[in-house]
Amino acid sequence: MSASVDAGDVKRHKWWGWGLDDVAFNWRNKPGFAPLADEKIGLDLRTMPDPVEPDLADFPVPATRLDPAHRAAIVHVVGEANLRDDDEYRVVHSFGRSLPDLFRVRHGDFTRLVDAIVYPGDEDEVAAVLRLVIEHDLVLIPYGGGSCISGSLTPDISEQRPILSMNLGRMDRVLEIDDTSGLARVQAGVYGPDLEEQLNAEGWTMGHFPDSFTYSTVGGWAATRSSGMQSDKYGDIEQIVRGLRMVHPDGVVRTKAIPGRDAGPSVHEMVLGSEGRLGIITECTVQVHRIAPVRQVIAYMYPDWEHGIRGMHAISRSEVKPTFTRLSDGPETRFSLALVKEPSSTKGKVAAKVQDGLFAYLRSKGWDTTEEMCISYVCFEGSKERVEREKAIVKKIVSRNGGITLGAGPGAVYDQKKFDTPYLRDFLLNYQVFGDVCETGASWSTLNEVHSKVYDAYYRSRKEAGGPGFMFCHMSHSYHGGACLYFTFAFPYTSDETALEEYYGAKNAVQQTFVDIGSGVSHHHGVGVEHRPWMEQDLGETGARMIRGLFADNDPGRNLNPGKVLEP
Amino acid sequence: MSASVDAGDVKRHKWWGWGLDDVAFNWRNKPGFAPLADEKIGLDLRTMPDPVEPDLADFPVPATRLDPAHRAAIVHVVGEANLRDDDEYRVVHSFGRSLPDLFRVRHGDFTRLVDAIVYPGDEDEVAAVLRLVIEHDLVLIPYGGGSCISGSLTPDISEQRPILSMNLGRMDRVLEIDDTSGLARVQAGVYGPDLEEQLNAEGWTMGHFPDSFTYSTVGGWAATRSSGMQSDKYGDIEQIVRGLRMVHPDGVVRTKAIPGRDAGPSVHEMVLGSEGRLGIITECTVQVHRIAPVRQVIAYMYPDWEHGIRGMHAISRSEVKPTFTRLSDGPETRFSLALVKEPSSTKGKVAAKVQDGLFAYLRSKGWDTTEEMCISYVCFEGSKERVEREKAIVKKIVSRNGGITLGAGPGAVYDQKKFDTPYLRDFLLNYQVFGDVCETGASWSTLNEVHSKVYDAYYRSRKEAGGPGFMFCHMSHSYHGGACLYFTFAFPYTSDETALEEYYGAKNAVQQTFVDIGSGVSHHHGVGVEHRPWMEQDLGETGARMIRGLFADNDPGRNLNPGKVLEP
Repeated sequence: MSASVDAGDVKRHKWWGWGLDDVAFNWRNKPGFAPLADEKIGLDLRTMPDPVEPDLADFPVPATRLDPAHRAAIVHVVGEANLRDDDEYRVVHSFGRSLPDLFRVRHGDFTRLVDAIVYPGDEDEVAAVLRLVIEHDLVLIPYGGGSCISGSLTPDISEQRPILSMNLGRMDRVLEIDDTSGLARVQAGVYGPDLEEQLNAEGWTMGHFPDSFTYSTVGGWAATRSSGMQSDKYGDIEQIVRGLRMVHPDGVVRTKAIPGRDAGPSVHEMVLGSEGRLGIITECTVQVHRIAPVRQVIAYMYPDWEHGIRGMHAISRSEVKPTFTRLSDGPETRFSLALVKEPSSTKGKVAAKVQDGLFAYLRSKGWDTTEEMCISYVCFEGSKERVEREKAIVKKIVSRNGGITLGAGPGAVYDQKKFDTPYLRDFLLNYQVFGDVCETGASWSTLNEVHSKVYDAYYRSRKEAGGPGFMFCHMSHSYHGGACLYFTFAFPYTSDETALEEYYGAKNAVQQTFVDIGSGVSHHHGVGVEHRPWMEQDLGETGARMIRGLFADNDPGRNLNPGKVLEP
Repeated sequence: MSASVDAGDVKRHKWWGWGLDDVAFNWRNKPGFAPLADEKIGLDLRTMPDPVEPDLADFPVPATRLDPAHRAAIVHVVGEANLRDDDEYRVVHSFGRSLPDLFRVRHGDFTRLVDAIVYPGDEDEVAAVLRLVIEHDLVLIPYGGGSCISGSLTPDISEQRPILSMNLGRMDRVLEIDDTSGLARVQAGVYGPDLEEQLNAEGWTMGHFPDSFTYSTVGGWAATRSSGMQSDKYGDIEQIVRGLRMVHPDGVVRTKAIPGRDAGPSVHEMVLGSEGRLGIITECTVQVHRIAPVRQVIAYMYPDWEHGIRGMHAISRSEVKPTFTRLSDGPETRFSLALVKEPSSTKGKVAAKVQDGLFAYLRSKGWDTTEEMCISYVCFEGSKERVEREKAIVKKIVSRNGGITLGAGPGAVYDQKKFDTPYLRDFLLNYQVFGDVCETGASWSTLNEVHSKVYDAYYRSRKEAGGPGFMFCHMSHSYHGGACLYFTFAFPYTSDETALEEYYGAKNAVQQTFVDIGSGVSHHHGVGVEHRPWMEQDLGETGARMIRGLFADNDPGRNLNPGKVLEP
């Protein structure tokens, strides 16, 4: 089947940051935000001048290293319209949206860019380009939605060979839905919203909604082992992607979408998470579900983190199966409240008054509503009967663990703004402030230890750096054996020259704590280069040796996204 | 920790067949069995002499090829008591319980036996033995419960190097239970019943009950990607085993029992299903669950297979989450009824009358109660409220799909005798009859096609062979995207000389049909050598190349269970 769009039509981030050109975080309509920023990291927004957007014309862009003969050979495969090597495209495809990438791209650190971007229209074109890559000893980096925050799509600055970025965005179709089996064959380059739109039109959903949803693709999710916020019900991408096709240097790998994968070591699970080092994923067969008749997000409040975690654990051990369960800790709850817009309608003003009254009441009961109180959201889906029954059970569990039910109002607000968070990092960078995230999977019995030790490590690192810092955290993605802890941190950096060193000081403190306790190096952000330093500790020496052997065996020339996941 | 038992205390099969010496299938107390055997495969049990058990003394056993110096080196590691090279032990450890293995062992086909059996007491001993194996170019085959029906523990008759079988049976302890996380660290050599006993004592269950439960181990389940009959609730072994330790030629591989495995290609999923080719699994961290307060197995009857499958599919799409769902087709239902014991109690006689009356009523409604009617079992676990609610929903679904609810009586009978089936194959071999099983995972949309085409292929192969045959099937292990179809077949072979050729005529017809339709080469019986011929078709050429590369990279000397899963 021919691709539905040309290269020029494929959605892309603004060159210097997340998402659309004309969308940005607005602090002025959120009265709680500026005071919190001032208190926690000394950022006084009211005295700051309006930020100026970076201009690509200010920065020199090095010439492409792609040989004209090689360029012609690739154009022969995909057509002239589907190879791009103009400056903006090369910049956009050379940086993911990790904090270091955002910092570097804004500062025009274009030491090594990809040399061209190829937009194949089908699997045959992917295979033909891959053959050229091997034959001419080029480097190939797959590109999905460009939202990777672990550096997996960023070229190695020491790479001397010409580097191609392969944007799968033209391969964006749902090819087939098997209604009986609840399975859909989907091209790897389809973005989240396009995928859901095509599925929804037939009454289906895949239910995979990572924060990056608007700027990420099925192939990217599979290649980096993504998890969506609704994974409690729909599963992580490893559960959702049942079969796939990947163009490998020696041919096409295809894994069957059948239950009970019982044929030796899992090729499927070698490809998932391979981040382009084994080949290019071109198609996935994914589980799809009928859109639930009823969906509700209910908000709850606990007096503190320990009570909240006990509640979350009790829900996971109950007979209730929510779509998602999420608990913000005290600092994150305060941050969330600081993001609430100033009410403009009468209804909104009344609601704000009601909230003030509630918080006063809670304080009278001994709650610390500023620093300790924890908000929680639970999403229920299914028949009306099921949603009502499960809500009643969860309400009891929350109450038994010292919490109260706030209701559907705040839940609906949370649900609507869930994809807006990534814009905040660009906003903070305008003011020389780093805001970033680190997450890990940990067992239920170690969640509190991870939580407190990560805080300790972060604030110790900030103290050593001599500057302020702010951290908050939520628990999400509940499993039988544990859950994900998702930390967000922010601090002002002191100078452009030392900025990345300051960033890694904080980031590394957090990551090393994860690994020291035995929790995961990453829960769903992949490895790339940002998490690579901990892979040997995470996998152990022999596990790392197995992965290295896998890469060396399948890509002896190191042409496929070399250096990602593990060095060499 | 030191091993709790010596080699001599480790449970083992009788040398020539399944399980205990004094347990055998008894047809005389089952009035329906002999007539069915006569009708379907021309076996008239009433005219047959009583079978004579084979005697090991009748068969010459070749001398061990293990060099005395190597033997001494191994004894130095594990102690004299924990290396066995007497005839019976060597025979027991040289054959799994596949049909070809059972046939060969009964006939004393001892061309190539393992040369010694080593029983390590801990992981260090496993590692020390593995080093000796590599150093002296020996061959090592791991041995769990010896119930493998795909030939994975059977030595290659052309192997010239000395062959060690490593029996993990001394490593049989639950080491630690993390109550909060619902995770237990378990040594790989623990048998199913011993494991459940240790877990039950603390109020936990793993919920993994394959047919082979009494003669299989955690390590064996992990190494062959086992599924238990309760996988709808508890998951296949891939979901249950969250972390593991494996002794690899270069060190110990350990995978962490954390949720959200997001660190590159999955080492964990390379080890699962590796059948000894990458190393020896010594420990698993498994999900455990509190024993459900209420458990009920309810039986249902459908007029035919198509109605039954529609019912099963509707249950899988409902909000009910049973512990297992199972549907026997018409022939298997008839077979099950033929296994019912003659009632001796008054209560039993009344129940039989009630059943006769019910079947007469169903015939009056147009049901074919002999050939078409399909029995189904659904297991419900949880609180009383949940079990009652789910039973009510399933009852409605069954009714809507043309079936009726029989109730808890037949369900309880099914539940009690579920581990007895393996004895039947030995019984049939006494009369020169092969009885065996083939199973596959298939999508919901192809289940009926697989079902009818496998029947066609099997009966065509029997017709070509010129002899009678009987086949029946059930559906079990329900997933979002599909289910397992489990076929049983039987036929009398004509002579010892042609027996295995006749066997493969039937088996291959079934297996090739699986692969031609695109369903799995095996759902949960592993690959070994019996399913190896279809692996290349199942994985595709490039997938097979990846697996071969994995084995070659990690075991370049081919010392670890060589030839299993894939040749070379």
